[in-house]
Amino acid sequence: MNDISLTAPVNNVNATGTGKAAVTRIYLDNAATTPLDPQVLQAMLPYLQDHFGNPSSIYSYGRETRLAIENARKSVAKALGARPSEIFFTSGGTESNNTAITAAIRDLGCRHIITSPIEHHAVLHTVEHYAAANAVTLSMVRLTSDGSVDLADLAAQLEAKKAEGVQTLVTLMHANNEIGTLLPLKEVGAICEKFDAIFHSDCVQTVGHYPLNLENIFVHFISGAGHKFHGPKGVGVLYVSNRVSIKPFIFGGGQERNMRAGTENVYGIVGFTKALELFMAHYEQDSAYILELKKYMADRLRATIPGVRFNCSNDGLYTVLSVSFPKSEKAEFLLFNLDINNICVSGGSACSSGASVGSHVISALHPETDSVTVRFSFSKFNTKEEVDLVVGKLQELL
Amino acid sequence: MNDISLTAPVNNVNATGTGKAAVTRIYLDNAATTPLDPQVLQAMLPYLQDHFGNPSSIYSYGRETRLAIENARKSVAKALGARPSEIFFTSGGTESNNTAITAAIRDLGCRHIITSPIEHHAVLHTVEHYAAANAVTLSMVRLTSDGSVDLADLAAQLEAKKAEGVQTLVTLMHANNEIGTLLPLKEVGAICEKFDAIFHSDCVQTVGHYPLNLENIFVHFISGAGHKFHGPKGVGVLYVSNRVSIKPFIFGGGQERNMRAGTENVYGIVGFTKALELFMAHYEQDSAYILELKKYMADRLRATIPGVRFNCSNDGLYTVLSVSFPKSEKAEFLLFNLDINNICVSGGSACSSGASVGSHVISALHPETDSVTVRFSFSKFNTKEEVDLVVGKLQELL
Repeated sequence: MNDISLTAPVNNVNATGTGKAAVTRIYLDNAATTPLDPQVLQAMLPYLQDHFGNPSSIYSYGRETRLAIENARKSVAKALGARPSEIFFTSGGTESNNTAITAAIRDLGCRHIITSPIEHHAVLHTVEHYAAANAVTLSMVRLTSDGSVDLADLAAQLEAKKAEGVQTLVTLMHANNEIGTLLPLKEVGAICEKFDAIFHSDCVQTVGHYPLNLENIFVHFISGAGHKFHGPKGVGVLYVSNRVSIKPFIFGGGQERNMRAGTENVYGIVGFTKALELFMAHYEQDSAYILELKKYMADRLRATIPGVRFNCSNDGLYTVLSVSFPKSEKAEFLLFNLDINNICVSGGSACSSGASVGSHVISALHPETDSVTVRFSFSKFNTKEEVDLVVGKLQELL
Repeated sequence: MNDISLTAPVNNVNATGTGKAAVTRIYLDNAATTPLDPQVLQAMLPYLQDHFGNPSSIYSYGRETRLAIENARKSVAKALGARPSEIFFTSGGTESNNTAITAAIRDLGCRHIITSPIEHHAVLHTVEHYAAANAVTLSMVRLTSDGSVDLADLAAQLEAKKAEGVQTLVTLMHANNEIGTLLPLKEVGAICEKFDAIFHSDCVQTVGHYPLNLENIFVHFISGAGHKFHGPKGVGVLYVSNRVSIKPFIFGGGQERNMRAGTENVYGIVGFTKALELFMAHYEQDSAYILELKKYMADRLRATIPGVRFNCSNDGLYTVLSVSFPKSEKAEFLLFNLDINNICVSGGSACSSGASVGSHVISALHPETDSVTVRFSFSKFNTKEEVDLVVGKLQELL
């Protein structure tokens, strides 16, 4: 297994993968997914080669992958301000969200769910499934026009449910993936604590983007996904607070301390953890750099494109800039024309970009919008030069 | 992203990963997991580097990963004798099994499940969960002492359930992962068809080991896992026959044609498919080679170890040789001593090897056994020299 040569194909790969000259693309859709950090791939490679044992096997090959997973768990717990016993690896943010919501209903007795119309579909479609099966009732929290949760409305709804004796799950995302609005996690947690609610937060856009200190927050479940912060696809994390005890969502072998069955995706877990460690090591400089890029782009757009509006407040997620351009024939073809010019941005979340219906987030907040929304989302690999090129192209196209 | 050098760490990696001289290990536990084929890793690498787009994104980066997934689906469908619309990628065999069983109950109206006590825990614990929740009743099919299903008993049970008007799910594995007994898939399918039952088969040990021609078999669901045939961990397949229509197990985005939400594990899917293609291209020579190794080991053991018995009939899974050694103080420490000698084998399935309880398969078939069972399982990477070394060591240890 030691004679594999990886040099040739790697050096031959270019952006098109066809052997043609590489096309220079500008990738400003990092909220959809991020390129794997080369250091993450380096960390994964030994587990894609010699360290291939099944972590449940008791001999040497198994012990070394088991050790890698348990070290990963400790490292992730430390990064999230949690205990290792509260960290479970999953196949991604969507599975984590499904697990939390299913367990809250099945194991923790939740019979009502409070959520918002601008959650990711991994939450919305899951709660809708259980509501359709009459397992729970559902209500939406009131939102302001920038997608912020009305905390007084949340408290009032929870107070009413507590008075009725109905155990309630609150599931609200930490940062909206389309417009970047942030939830005050600690305040929402305090409201849930006051009214004995179960609290789940989809943190797919914030794990690996903000240091979370979960031991200081009243929250039962949070979800994260590796590929949103330069880690691999196909691996996520579910934090389950020691306050609660739940059963598995996926049944089978005793992996993840009997909480998530299935042979562990060892390289995925190793890569997830390396990406989170890299984030923790460089958070201050990387986040400042990315925020500067975002502000620079907002300033340039404001200066050059008449009628441009921004869909998130200034203190939203530092990676996302959601922009509304006045509707016009040219604006309607903006995404298409940007793609032709090798500029990768999106109209909303990737998960719904294939659908012919528009963004459910924008239509929930601005049902009568007369603009075209484009999400630009940044990573540490982007540059001001790229922003200049994109703004120049936007001026040309609009 | 093109300046990554992969050469150094790859060449420095050895079996211990610590920089010490490599230890020569003999790996005969390929039913637990298999080393990734270097050609599979080569196929995956572009998707771990430049081809990182979210397959749901509509621009170039997304289109190239979308294309990779849809080409993978066609290739897997072809290998399984299925249609592309019947192939869904999952996070592994366990998720596939959970999906099939959940859908059979929730969407197809199954109220009784017939299974066997020697199924993998991914099936047994799932059906036990639903039985405990009173969603279904459960019965076990009669087995012979080598783990073969009594087809007359299966037919009689199904006939009775049909007379009662109870929709029934039959879930029986194609090859037992511990002892290698094979199910006659086509005959069982015909019995299920006769009595209008839903049929699921856990094919985790046979996908990538036998060419399956599903269009000629009456089966609604089969499950497979990439890491059992030199593909990656964290990726599996679920075949869902066009005869039935089900809802997702994991809700969210519209991935996998609205059947399995979550950003696709693109490199996993590409690796799964490459491994399956390699299997299909070399099946005849590889399976003959592995069967010869297995027979050679059986002959050598029979000739050198008194009282040795084999737990599968001669026409079982060609990769697995389950051996019972007469109980003795030395035999009880066999796995431990083989590990010390860098020989990797297992007592049963990896998924339960961490548990202090023994194999549920052996105890179901031989409740009063006075022997120690060891599973030797082979791959194309094993050699006769390794078998000789292992048999020599067994003689020494017993």
